[in-house]
Amino acid sequence: MISRSETSLIRSLSRKKFRDSEGLFVVEGEKLVQEALDSGYEVVKIFRTSDIGEDAMARITMLSSPSPVLAVVRQKPRQEPPEPGNDLVLALDSVRDPGNMGTIIRIADWFGIKDIAASEDCVEIYNPKVVQATMGAIFRVNVSYCNLEKYIREVARPSGVPIYGTFLEGDNIYTADLHHSGVIVMGSESNGISYEVEALVSSKIHIPSFAGDRATSESLNVAVATAITCSEFRRRGTTL
Amino acid sequence: MISRSETSLIRSLSRKKFRDSEGLFVVEGEKLVQEALDSGYEVVKIFRTSDIGEDAMARITMLSSPSPVLAVVRQKPRQEPPEPGNDLVLALDSVRDPGNMGTIIRIADWFGIKDIAASEDCVEIYNPKVVQATMGAIFRVNVSYCNLEKYIREVARPSGVPIYGTFLEGDNIYTADLHHSGVIVMGSESNGISYEVEALVSSKIHIPSFAGDRATSESLNVAVATAITCSEFRRRGTTL
Repeated sequence: MISRSETSLIRSLSRKKFRDSEGLFVVEGEKLVQEALDSGYEVVKIFRTSDIGEDAMARITMLSSPSPVLAVVRQKPRQEPPEPGNDLVLALDSVRDPGNMGTIIRIADWFGIKDIAASEDCVEIYNPKVVQATMGAIFRVNVSYCNLEKYIREVARPSGVPIYGTFLEGDNIYTADLHHSGVIVMGSESNGISYEVEALVSSKIHIPSFAGDRATSESLNVAVATAITCSEFRRRGTTL
Repeated sequence: MISRSETSLIRSLSRKKFRDSEGLFVVEGEKLVQEALDSGYEVVKIFRTSDIGEDAMARITMLSSPSPVLAVVRQKPRQEPPEPGNDLVLALDSVRDPGNMGTIIRIADWFGIKDIAASEDCVEIYNPKVVQATMGAIFRVNVSYCNLEKYIREVARPSGVPIYGTFLEGDNIYTADLHHSGVIVMGSESNGISYEVEALVSSKIHIPSFAGDRATSESLNVAVATAITCSEFRRRGTTL
């Protein structure tokens, strides 16, 4: 069974305003709900089509074709991004597309990057499209929202690690000096890395195009660029 | 000005059935339309908001927020995928998501891969979501639909090049033997590479996860996996 007030609450969670005020978000699909249960997140309530019926599920789902299960999960309290220490931290500057954000969280999870520092204008991770695109990685990777310039200036740089950023004029990533720890800044697709953050980057790198003399795409999608960058950092850390 | 029959034709091109029968597709946005004009594709007609008005553009656009320009472009005739020769060919097995397909075409363009062989059940490249996601790469990369098993068995393998495919039990891509030519098969996210095609793969490779003992995502998005794979092939070809 599902009450009228529960239906109304869940439907409201499609909007950031209500996710913020309630401190809750929605997870859908057998696999994702199981991952939520296995994680440190508090699963507040689970609704199954077998209990509430298809009509009720159709009213609360945020998917175009409803899954058999939907969970309401409590958000984790906001926290500051950590000192990079002996590992890599991914820093995202204005990543606004939910699909890209979710895919980047999944990439971080795959490459064992536990912490993401996101600028305040990045899309919120509890957005349903982000949650679904992470395929469950949202429960394993810590995403902290912060003033990115302040974080890099006051926390990351004083800890002595390199600050990497991708720029057209950067060094070829395949031959550049890459350290096993540090901060990797990825900029938005449309605007790249902001000037304030660029000024704090200690090592500019670049993914070269192999199109030769032919005209080619001007850039890679930010999630794709993040994947190639993380792959190259991890390759170096283990095989060289 | 735009006639009623033009409006009706363009609107019909949102459906594959009519794209197929008319042999046309729609391109939107200043940058993409310019790329269409610079390419070998025939641009049949261009409509600008400044000529036809905002109301008329709103009726024909396939975007959620219309761009100032829309072009009707003639499809290229279907062709068979080429022999791999001295270069890499990307082979896609059941890639059905338009965003992934568009992103993969853009990745191929970036890495100088001129030919993609796609199984018949891959999403059609003239789908508007694919076209937009390519960011113009659709005009530079040749995508041929084919029976993938037949292509690999009768065309690619007899030419003597290796057939690569990503599998969980494959060799670590960072240390595996990678050739500068060959076919790279990427499978769909949900089903991986089909058994028939797997039987023709001569070299199984794998992108390792770096999550250590922690639980991690089971897989990477197919576009992300394609990006990492192409990056590693091209890195080897140039710097080793």
